[in-house]
Amino acid sequence: MLLKRIAILGPGLLGGSIALRLREVGGWHVTLWTRREATLPQLRERGVADAVTANISDAVRDADVVVLCVPIEAMGRLAEEIAHAAKPECIVTDVGSVKASVVAELDAILSGKCRFIGSHPMAGKAESGIDAAEASLFRETNCIITPTAATDAEAIDLIRGFWETIGCRVVSMGAGEHDECVALISHLPHLVAGSLVRAVADRNPRAFEVVGPGFRDTTRVAGGPPELWTGIMQANRGAILEAIDAMIAKLYDFRQTLERVAESKDADDLKNFLAVAKQTRDQIKFPK
Amino acid sequence: MLLKRIAILGPGLLGGSIALRLREVGGWHVTLWTRREATLPQLRERGVADAVTANISDAVRDADVVVLCVPIEAMGRLAEEIAHAAKPECIVTDVGSVKASVVAELDAILSGKCRFIGSHPMAGKAESGIDAAEASLFRETNCIITPTAATDAEAIDLIRGFWETIGCRVVSMGAGEHDECVALISHLPHLVAGSLVRAVADRNPRAFEVVGPGFRDTTRVAGGPPELWTGIMQANRGAILEAIDAMIAKLYDFRQTLERVAESKDADDLKNFLAVAKQTRDQIKFPK
Repeated sequence: MLLKRIAILGPGLLGGSIALRLREVGGWHVTLWTRREATLPQLRERGVADAVTANISDAVRDADVVVLCVPIEAMGRLAEEIAHAAKPECIVTDVGSVKASVVAELDAILSGKCRFIGSHPMAGKAESGIDAAEASLFRETNCIITPTAATDAEAIDLIRGFWETIGCRVVSMGAGEHDECVALISHLPHLVAGSLVRAVADRNPRAFEVVGPGFRDTTRVAGGPPELWTGIMQANRGAILEAIDAMIAKLYDFRQTLERVAESKDADDLKNFLAVAKQTRDQIKFPK
Repeated sequence: MLLKRIAILGPGLLGGSIALRLREVGGWHVTLWTRREATLPQLRERGVADAVTANISDAVRDADVVVLCVPIEAMGRLAEEIAHAAKPECIVTDVGSVKASVVAELDAILSGKCRFIGSHPMAGKAESGIDAAEASLFRETNCIITPTAATDAEAIDLIRGFWETIGCRVVSMGAGEHDECVALISHLPHLVAGSLVRAVADRNPRAFEVVGPGFRDTTRVAGGPPELWTGIMQANRGAILEAIDAMIAKLYDFRQTLERVAESKDADDLKNFLAVAKQTRDQIKFPK
């Protein structure tokens, strides 16, 4: 089976960037679905897709692959409609930042109707919305796919190939391990960035007048859309609570070390704390 | 008085970038001092300065302005030598990330010998050392200067003009307020980034295999040199301990909010936490 016709549900940063990338690749027929009928003329004019529609059944009827690019709390309702309209061989995936709950919900709805496999491309930027979309957004980023024991092997190969076409490096893991990993490297950084901004605002807002590039980068992710992130945080609450506890414990460790260190002697523990952090980070293979 | 001859003490990222910028501006005579005699041939070959030397007295004797670009714990010893060799009208400044302790120490040493005024250009990048230096490093960054009641007005004007030549926007504040501000927007982000890397490593190092650009940016500053940062953390310990407490309190706030939020209802507090962080950050005027 060759994937040629795609329905992208949700014309935001990720959906728009997938559409732009596929136009660059060529040979695809892209249908873009939006919930908001009023935006159809704009989307048509923009020309990122071969067809745009606000009707889900029309969008997915002939699709070889459907990608849900909507907030995770909106996915179940869309999956119900996909289950009625899509071909049995159609592969359905999503770009949600949480997988255990999404996979459980969508598997239950789509099982026996078409083939679902969860995805999470780890791409993003400060801006959101289709205006920020770009064909190169996914290039050299990691995309996690979360097949279950029941997922058919062809579907795994096809979705892996799809994300590689988009530009991703694909990693496969269980939905549970995915959620634990992203709680640590995506959800925790987001709430840490937000907490950092708010802690500074509480203590001395004048500090914002003299920020450097370090503060800008450390807090960048806090600029993401609060609605989207609220849904993510709720859906992955358990793993995130554990990640916060680990973070608070580590900060407290550092605090104790700093308090112990006298002005001019015995700074080895302090240097060691920072050196281990640097060494650990230096070994990470970052995308792009 | 016109500043024309400069001695830059310390051929690292900041010292090297100042030298490169002044060569671009033209009309300056730049002397670069290094502690390590063995590196003199390399520095000469590199051609970033008109003269390079390992002799402090030679470096500062004819200087109109001296900039200390060395770790803060090395500044006192260099200041003693500057006090013996520099002209009385010479303006001495530094690029240290902590000001109250540095200003107190250097004022005491240089008072009556030449004119000292503390500076802190808020510039940096992931790489350190002269290999990473670039003429544009300071462009549109903030530089804080910390004059005291005793600093003469001409010296303030001259040092302000100097940093503007280098490309900075200059902000003047007391050394104490400086230290409180940078504890919040520079030192706290550094230790937060380091703690984040270490918390993830403790809980599940496999998470590093799937990092995205968000984790890279949030932790970037943790890649800075541990020796340098150990000195900074020690020197600004009091303000940093208070900043850590504010950060832990804010994380705990978020934790409580997340725990309170049930799966599908009452997510307003959670969204509000994230929205206030985003709004606050959106209003910050970041450099570059």
